[in-house]
Amino acid sequence: MLIHNISQLLTMKGGPQRGHDLGKLGLIEQGALLMRGENIEAVGTQDELLTKYPDEPRLDANGKVILPGFVDPHTHLVWAGDRAVEFEMRLEGRTYLEILAAGGGIISTVEATRSADYQTLFAQTRARAKTMFRYGTTTAEAKTGYGLECKSELDQLQILMDLDKEGPLEIVPTFLPAHAVAPEYKTNPDEYVRLICSKMLPAAREHWVKHAAGKPMPFVDVFCETGAFDLVQSRRIFETARDLGFPLKIHADEFDNLGGARLAAELGAASADHLVKTSLADIEALAASSTVAVALPCTPFGLGQSEYTPARQILDKGGLLALATDCNPGTAWCENMQFVIALACRALKLTPAQAIAASTINSAAAIQRADRIGSIEPGKQADLVFLSVDDYRHLGYRFGENLVNTVVKKGRIIPIL
Amino acid sequence: MLIHNISQLLTMKGGPQRGHDLGKLGLIEQGALLMRGENIEAVGTQDELLTKYPDEPRLDANGKVILPGFVDPHTHLVWAGDRAVEFEMRLEGRTYLEILAAGGGIISTVEATRSADYQTLFAQTRARAKTMFRYGTTTAEAKTGYGLECKSELDQLQILMDLDKEGPLEIVPTFLPAHAVAPEYKTNPDEYVRLICSKMLPAAREHWVKHAAGKPMPFVDVFCETGAFDLVQSRRIFETARDLGFPLKIHADEFDNLGGARLAAELGAASADHLVKTSLADIEALAASSTVAVALPCTPFGLGQSEYTPARQILDKGGLLALATDCNPGTAWCENMQFVIALACRALKLTPAQAIAASTINSAAAIQRADRIGSIEPGKQADLVFLSVDDYRHLGYRFGENLVNTVVKKGRIIPIL
Ligand SMILES: [Zn+2]
Ligand SMILES: [Zn+2]
Repeated sequence: MLIHNISQLLTMKGGPQRGHDLGKLGLIEQGALLMRGENIEAVGTQDELLTKYPDEPRLDANGKVILPGFVDPHTHLVWAGDRAVEFEMRLEGRTYLEILAAGGGIISTVEATRSADYQTLFAQTRARAKTMFRYGTTTAEAKTGYGLECKSELDQLQILMDLDKEGPLEIVPTFLPAHAVAPEYKTNPDEYVRLICSKMLPAAREHWVKHAAGKPMPFVDVFCETGAFDLVQSRRIFETARDLGFPLKIHADEFDNLGGARLAAELGAASADHLVKTSLADIEALAASSTVAVALPCTPFGLGQSEYTPARQILDKGGLLALATDCNPGTAWCENMQFVIALACRALKLTPAQAIAASTINSAAAIQRADRIGSIEPGKQADLVFLSVDDYRHLGYRFGENLVNTVVKKGRIIPIL
Repeated sequence: MLIHNISQLLTMKGGPQRGHDLGKLGLIEQGALLMRGENIEAVGTQDELLTKYPDEPRLDANGKVILPGFVDPHTHLVWAGDRAVEFEMRLEGRTYLEILAAGGGIISTVEATRSADYQTLFAQTRARAKTMFRYGTTTAEAKTGYGLECKSELDQLQILMDLDKEGPLEIVPTFLPAHAVAPEYKTNPDEYVRLICSKMLPAAREHWVKHAAGKPMPFVDVFCETGAFDLVQSRRIFETARDLGFPLKIHADEFDNLGGARLAAELGAASADHLVKTSLADIEALAASSTVAVALPCTPFGLGQSEYTPARQILDKGGLLALATDCNPGTAWCENMQFVIALACRALKLTPAQAIAASTINSAAAIQRADRIGSIEPGKQADLVFLSVDDYRHLGYRFGENLVNTVVKKGRIIPIL
C-alpha cells in the first residue's frame, strides 16, 4: 500500500532527540510512504515513490499531515471506578497529600479495583484504551498499581496483556506494586517493601515468562515520594527488580525532591517521570545518562497547580525529554496526547515541533521501543496518524478537539472521524 | 417521545443563577422527560412520567446523565485560514499586542477572510459549527468582525444566517465591525467609527430586517481595548446601535481596563466579556445590573497566561457569570465547551455544578435566550446532551475527551459517538 499526497510527512527520523535537537521533524513536503504487512518499507517524496512503485495500490491522503502514531509512555490505564467526588473536594481547597493522609485518594481506587471482577475491570480499562486510540495514540505504556497485593497486581498485569492482544492499541505493561504502601502495611511500610521484593516481583516475572510469549520484560516502577516510598526503599525495590531482569522506571519529584531522578540515572532506568521539583544538579545527572525525562503536564493542570516540569532547563542541559498523559483517576483523567501537546506548548513553552518529537520518537525511547516505533522509517512498524489538517502546527495551536482523522496500526487502516 | 432511565437529569430550572446561587442543578435522579415536536412538554421522575404517559414511544437513556445542550455565548466562528505560524511566534515570546502592532495578528485573518470566496468561508465556518455540535453545543453566539468593511461584514452575517438555517447548531449572530480598526483607517480610527455608525450599522439593520424573517435583532459588539476602540468610541458605536434597535455586547478588560464593563452595565448590554483586568468597583457595577459577565478562560490558556477572570469575586458580589469558548483563530481555537468547563474548574475555581450552570442557563441569559434554551423545562426547546457517564461531575473532572454520546436539537435526536 502506497500512501501519497501527504502535504507534510513528519518522519521524526534519526533516533531520539537530545537537548536542543528536540523538534527535528524530518519533514518531507508532498511526501509518500510504502507499507508492507505490519511495517514501513519505503519513505520519500511522492515523486520518488510513485515512480519507483508504479503498480502499488494507492491511498490518497488528500493533502493532509501524516506523523508517527503517538506513544504515551506513562499511563495508569487499568483501574475501576472514578474519583469525581474527590475532584469536588479538591476544588474546596484540599491537597492531594491531605486527601491521601485522610485515607482517601489512591486507596479508594485500590478498593474499587480490588473488588471489581475481571469483566468490569477489563471493560472499564478497554474503554480508555479505545479513547486513547481514537485520539491517535498507537502505543501506550500502562501500569498496574491499584491492587497493592500480589493477586490483584497480577490480575491487572494480565488485563493489560489481554488488552494488548486484542488491539488495536499496543500496550507496554509496567508492574507497579510500589504505587503506594498497601493499606494493610500502613504502619509497617518496610514490611510491604519486603513483600514486593520477596514475593510480588518474582511472581510477576514468573507470570510474564509463562504467558508473554517471549516479549520483552515489563517495566518495574516505584512512586518515590513523601507519603509513598523513600529513597532507600525505592533502591531496594529497584535492585531486586534489576536482578530479576526487569527494566526500570520511576515516579520522582512530583511534590518533593527525594533524589529519585538521580537514582534513576544511576541505575540506568528507562525513564524518570514527573520531575516538577527536580534540582538543577539532578537535571544534570539525568542529562548525563540515557534515562529519559518524562514530563506529565496534565497532572499539575489537573490539580489546578501552576508549577510544571522545567522542560526548558532539561533541554538546556542536553536531556532527553518526552511527554505523557499520566492518565489516572486521581489527578489527570485524560487519554488525549493531542491535549498534552497543546498544554506542553503553553505550560512547558515547547514549540509544536518539540512537543511532537517528545510524544513520538522520544516517548518511544522512554519505553525502550525506539527501534520499532516513534518514527516513520523503513523497517519500523507502520504506526501512523493522519491529521484532518494540512499543517502540523495545528497540533499545539488548537486545543480541545480531536484533529485525528485516521489511525494506522501495524499497517491496519482505521478511520476515526 | 418519552426519554427515561436518566440517572441524573440536570434541569437547571428556575432561570439565570446570580452570585452564589450559581450551581443549582435542579437535579432529578432516575428522571424522565417528554418531548413533543421541538419542545419539552413534561419533566419529572421516571415513575411519574411512565405512569402519566404510558403510551408514548420511549427512548431508554440507559442510566446516563442528561443536561441542557451547552450554550456558547461568545465565538468568532466565521473566519478563513489560520494563524498556526503566529502561534509559534508567540512561543518565542512575542505578545498579542506586539503582533497586533507589527501588522500581524487579527489583520492577517481579516485579509484571509476578505479574500475568501463564499463557498470557502462557508465550508471552513461550517466545519467549526459541526465540531461545536459534536461536543454538545446546541446554540452558539457567533460574531462577524474579520471583514472590517461593509460588504465583507454583511457577507459574514449572511453566512451565519445561512449556517443557522442549515442547522443543527443554532446560531445567534453578533455584528462586530468594531473588532479592530480597519487597516484602511489605521491613521484615522475616528473616521472608521463614523463609517460604522453612519453606514455599517444601518446596513446591517436593513439586511437583517429584510432577510431574517422576524427573528430578534443580532447583537452589536465592540472590542473596547488598548489598540482597538477607546471608551468614547465604544460609547458612540453603542449609542448608535441602541438607537437602531440592536441589543449590545462588549469585549472589555482583556488586557487593560478602559471602563468597558461599567459602560456595558450603564447601557444595559446583554453581556460584558473577558473581564480579566476588571476592577472591584466595575465588578460591583456589573453585579448591580442585568448584564451577564462572560468569562473566556480559553483565551489566557491559549496565550499561556496565568491571569484569568476573577470569577469568585464576581460571584461574591452577586454577579451573573457565564462561560464561553471565545473560539477564534488568534488566541483560542477551541470549539469545545466541555473543555471550557474543565478549565474553569481549575483556573476559575468553579465547581462542576457552577461551571455547568454558567454554560447553560446563564450563557443563555448572556445571549438573551434564557426564555427558550439553557434549561430543561416544559415549554422550552428540547435541546439536550446525553453524556456517556452516570455522574455529571465527570464534566470538569475529566479533560481532553468528548463525553457527549448523543445530542438532541429541537427534538431531533443525533447520535455522536
Ligand atoms: Zn504516574
Ligand atoms: Zn471575542
